[in-house]
Amino acid sequence: MTTVYDVTTWSVPGNPSASPYNDIGLVINSIIADIKSQQTSQASKPGGVIYIPPGDYSLKTRVNIDVSFLTIRGSGHGFTSLSIRYNTSDTSSWHEINPGGSRIRVENTDGNAEAFRVYRTGDPRLSAVVFQNFCLDGVSFGTNQNSYVNGKTGILFDSANDSCRIEGMGMVYLEHGLVVRDTDALSVSDNFLAECGNCVELVGSGQASKVTNNHIGAGYVGFSIFAENHVGLLVAGNNIFPRGNSMVHVKTSTRCSITANRLHAFYPGMVVFEGVCSENLISSNHFLRQPEPWGPMQPYNNGLDDLYGLVHVYGNSNTITANHFTYDVPSSAITPAGQTPTIILVSSGSNNYIAANNTASAVPVMTVVLDSSTTGTKVLDSGTQAQFQPYQSTYSFRATP
Amino acid sequence: MTTVYDVTTWSVPGNPSASPYNDIGLVINSIIADIKSQQTSQASKPGGVIYIPPGDYSLKTRVNIDVSFLTIRGSGHGFTSLSIRYNTSDTSSWHEINPGGSRIRVENTDGNAEAFRVYRTGDPRLSAVVFQNFCLDGVSFGTNQNSYVNGKTGILFDSANDSCRIEGMGMVYLEHGLVVRDTDALSVSDNFLAECGNCVELVGSGQASKVTNNHIGAGYVGFSIFAENHVGLLVAGNNIFPRGNSMVHVKTSTRCSITANRLHAFYPGMVVFEGVCSENLISSNHFLRQPEPWGPMQPYNNGLDDLYGLVHVYGNSNTITANHFTYDVPSSAITPAGQTPTIILVSSGSNNYIAANNTASAVPVMTVVLDSSTTGTKVLDSGTQAQFQPYQSTYSFRATP
Amino acid sequence: MTTVYDVTTWSVPGNPSASPYNDIGLVINSIIADIKSQQTSQASKPGGVIYIPPGDYSLKTRVNIDVSFLTIRGSGHGFTSLSIRYNTSDTSSWHEINPGGSRIRVENTDGNAEAFRVYRTGDPRLSAVVFQNFCLDGVSFGTNQNSYVNGKTGILFDSANDSCRIEGMGMVYLEHGLVVRDTDALSVSDNFLAECGNCVELVGSGQASKVTNNHIGAGYVGFSIFAENHVGLLVAGNNIFPRGNSMVHVKTSTRCSITANRLHAFYPGMVVFEGVCSENLISSNHFLRQPEPWGPMQPYNNGLDDLYGLVHVYGNSNTITANHFTYDVPSSAITPAGQTPTIILVSSGSNNYIAANNTASAVPVMTVVLDSSTTGTKVLDSGTQAQFQPYQSTYSFRATP
Repeated sequence: MTTVYDVTTWSVPGNPSASPYNDIGLVINSIIADIKSQQTSQASKPGGVIYIPPGDYSLKTRVNIDVSFLTIRGSGHGFTSLSIRYNTSDTSSWHEINPGGSRIRVENTDGNAEAFRVYRTGDPRLSAVVFQNFCLDGVSFGTNQNSYVNGKTGILFDSANDSCRIEGMGMVYLEHGLVVRDTDALSVSDNFLAECGNCVELVGSGQASKVTNNHIGAGYVGFSIFAENHVGLLVAGNNIFPRGNSMVHVKTSTRCSITANRLHAFYPGMVVFEGVCSENLISSNHFLRQPEPWGPMQPYNNGLDDLYGLVHVYGNSNTITANHFTYDVPSSAITPAGQTPTIILVSSGSNNYIAANNTASAVPVMTVVLDSSTTGTKVLDSGTQAQFQPYQSTYSFRATP
Repeated sequence: MTTVYDVTTWSVPGNPSASPYNDIGLVINSIIADIKSQQTSQASKPGGVIYIPPGDYSLKTRVNIDVSFLTIRGSGHGFTSLSIRYNTSDTSSWHEINPGGSRIRVENTDGNAEAFRVYRTGDPRLSAVVFQNFCLDGVSFGTNQNSYVNGKTGILFDSANDSCRIEGMGMVYLEHGLVVRDTDALSVSDNFLAECGNCVELVGSGQASKVTNNHIGAGYVGFSIFAENHVGLLVAGNNIFPRGNSMVHVKTSTRCSITANRLHAFYPGMVVFEGVCSENLISSNHFLRQPEPWGPMQPYNNGLDDLYGLVHVYGNSNTITANHFTYDVPSSAITPAGQTPTIILVSSGSNNYIAANNTASAVPVMTVVLDSSTTGTKVLDSGTQAQFQPYQSTYSFRATP
Repeated sequence: MTTVYDVTTWSVPGNPSASPYNDIGLVINSIIADIKSQQTSQASKPGGVIYIPPGDYSLKTRVNIDVSFLTIRGSGHGFTSLSIRYNTSDTSSWHEINPGGSRIRVENTDGNAEAFRVYRTGDPRLSAVVFQNFCLDGVSFGTNQNSYVNGKTGILFDSANDSCRIEGMGMVYLEHGLVVRDTDALSVSDNFLAECGNCVELVGSGQASKVTNNHIGAGYVGFSIFAENHVGLLVAGNNIFPRGNSMVHVKTSTRCSITANRLHAFYPGMVVFEGVCSENLISSNHFLRQPEPWGPMQPYNNGLDDLYGLVHVYGNSNTITANHFTYDVPSSAITPAGQTPTIILVSSGSNNYIAANNTASAVPVMTVVLDSSTTGTKVLDSGTQAQFQPYQSTYSFRATP
């Protein structure tokens, strides 16, 4: 019994003309069917590894993964910038114009949005499904290559899952790169996920997961990293670059950690709490906010103004400490015009703790603003008296001397 | 001369019936013997790589590794929860019941406890032995599947070693997962080590090592991460979940770093210093302490009471800063009953530095307690006056305002 | 069309005697030529993967990489200490004396300094060139094996590049390990780079790159990590050990992040800013400074005295917070004799922010020194009044109580 498959040498039973170059989805589904037909003992289903050599593949049929312990592995994340290409008037002299490595063009003709869907009913949850080191390329955003919208999703985990991994992948020009529902102990590490409408979306609920050591940068329409109803998510050691509607957006999530990341944005709202998000840690991150420098993208932004905060806190007992903020926007580009930009906005909640943060800015900023519904915020050594704007009176404040 | 081996295609000389499915240990030892017979020049011993395809293997004979530069590599960490399975009354309808990937069942019949032992006398130390991306499964904890005791060890490095690596491994239901003696510049990264009595034990002594970017969670009987007589260990970017007698337990170790981790526990004693541990850094971590929520595990704990501290400091000039603590235990579950729980206990030592830590708790807690033998502790912005309990008088204290 | 190559099975056209054991550079160049001849469509150049099995290879001819999406991959970083070997008088009884794994001896006879050069003119920049898991061995530093000088470079990226990766590599006894010019979104992760004159040099300019989760330790002559004109570099989660002229040396770089690292040095100047370096974050690192303990290396140092600072800041609005420093040098070894050593020296610049750092030392130290040209530095909770030495008067200071 083999458990090691190569998409370029697999013969699809009954379909001799099937080729991964024409439809790698059909080929991988056939391999998965083979794994299932070979592994029928409940006590022994080791899964397998499906290898995708470097090459240019098209996916027309969604891959449906309903076995645990399956690794799909390539030899090259293959990222190259399609945004630069599509915003260059003449690329006729270019060496190459497309991503590469083990590159799958996501070109579904089956009516599905996803290249890969991981889904199974019944027990146990799917475990240890792994995607490694290949490229998912959405090819085009259609008539407006700067729209970040094409309805395409790279990988969707669509039922509860445990100990799965996404490692060393490249994704580009997908509306949704990676979407994972109801995850437990997920690892998203060492990937290059950029120029996607959204990069990482952890939906439904989740716990004890990590997004670490990645390069990530979404389009202006969506999330670089999104998590909802998560507990204990660790976002650490990532270099998160523009654009991204936000860098890290958590929704009704608690006890998560955003530490030791470098975050760079062209809009306000770099770390955003949506709904009540409590007892999270934001520590040792570097935040850089600049205006959009690149002509083709200057028409776009995320619609937020500079009073929204680079960090927008909603919830209780969060800890924000040991971060550096640089706000490098000229006065003329601030919105609303004439207002003083906000670095950290506590928009609601009690007992948030903000200490030992430093802000560099050429224009006057409010380093911490407390909205009227907040209570008991502690603000220590995170700005001068003039940089602190409380809209209520129950707080503690110690100015950076 | 080949240096690339596959356990499923290797023929053991003189033993045609040998099979990795019956005893992968015997097969790997035979491969190692071949490597040694082929590589006899002192100046050129490149080692080799032994590949374990996805599959279900049994190990009856301990593998003895006494060559440098050997990589043992699989295609799948293959973790699935055996704890959930063994605590489910009826799994007859389950899709699968066992771990998978490149799965080795640790079933020694040779009288040894270990699946793998790395050991050599003489000079130099063994270098660059690497374990990658396979599963070590202890199968069962015997009559009490919640005992975390079965005498089995996954990997034991038993003599001094340098620049070795454990990467992408899965381990489950071993009493001891990884044990490394006298290590230098070890890397334990990207692993999934859970439901083991102990996960990572760095014994003897060690320096300049790192345990980074892992998912780790031991049983209630032992250590998630243990290190003794270590200098310069870096524990960073890990998601360490329950249970674990402790999360990070260092013994007579100095100048180590515990940073940017997420730690979640069901008992006190999350980070524990045993013996004099000095000049260590605990920074930018998220600590969450809750009571055991799961019925099958509620009979068990680590025997410590809530006065022990989530962080238990013993030693001098340690730095504890920029951490978040959540203590989420109802009054009724606190032991001793009626006492005020401790977040950070400095039990002995001088000149410890505790600054800019925040604690969230629904019940009153002491965020910092100084035992009577301590001297010169500095406690800054880490709790209110009411949350500070010094049992001696030589300290500095500045309350969080 | 194959895209998967093995250096041990490739036949160089027209050169049947070519062997990777004699000149792996010639073989890899031939493979690259094959890739280029096979992939001629501008729209489809997926590149390939060149596999180097464990073995002992010599490189006489520089590899010239001018295609994107090429992965060069081995099975073993193969590091062993040559420094210990060359400083041992008799190694005749040793098991082995050389590095191993997929080991390439860098022995150019072509007049070039580099084993690998990545370079292309025209557009676009080279993307997604990847080096993984092999060993580059400089073999010898010549007549003085402790000189760290031999004119050899492991890998040189010599033209602008994007989304490239160096992962799991081992390097030893090269004057320059990895040199990368004009990089964007580079990832240097999980490597073992030690006993090189310089380990990682990011030259020219660069942005949005990361050096994470590595073991790194250069010789006393050069840099462990160097970056010039970089923006947004993330150096995180590394264990950086001696010696290294410096650990992290940034030159005219801004908005970079040095977080959650463990740094160990035998000289002053562990983190050095050269030229104006502004708005950088140094957070949650552990610094250990000791004197050189090893006889063979005691004749050498980096020429700096103890007034230079373990952290030497030059520039504006940098943030230094939540770090631990241990200065463990006996009075007799301090230079200039009788002086009080400096932990953090702000040598020039305005508005630097230094908060919540702790220093352990058996001898009196100045934890923060402000030179006369500095202005507006904020120094909070980072030492006592006696440990603070300002040579001008425009600063804020709050002593650790």
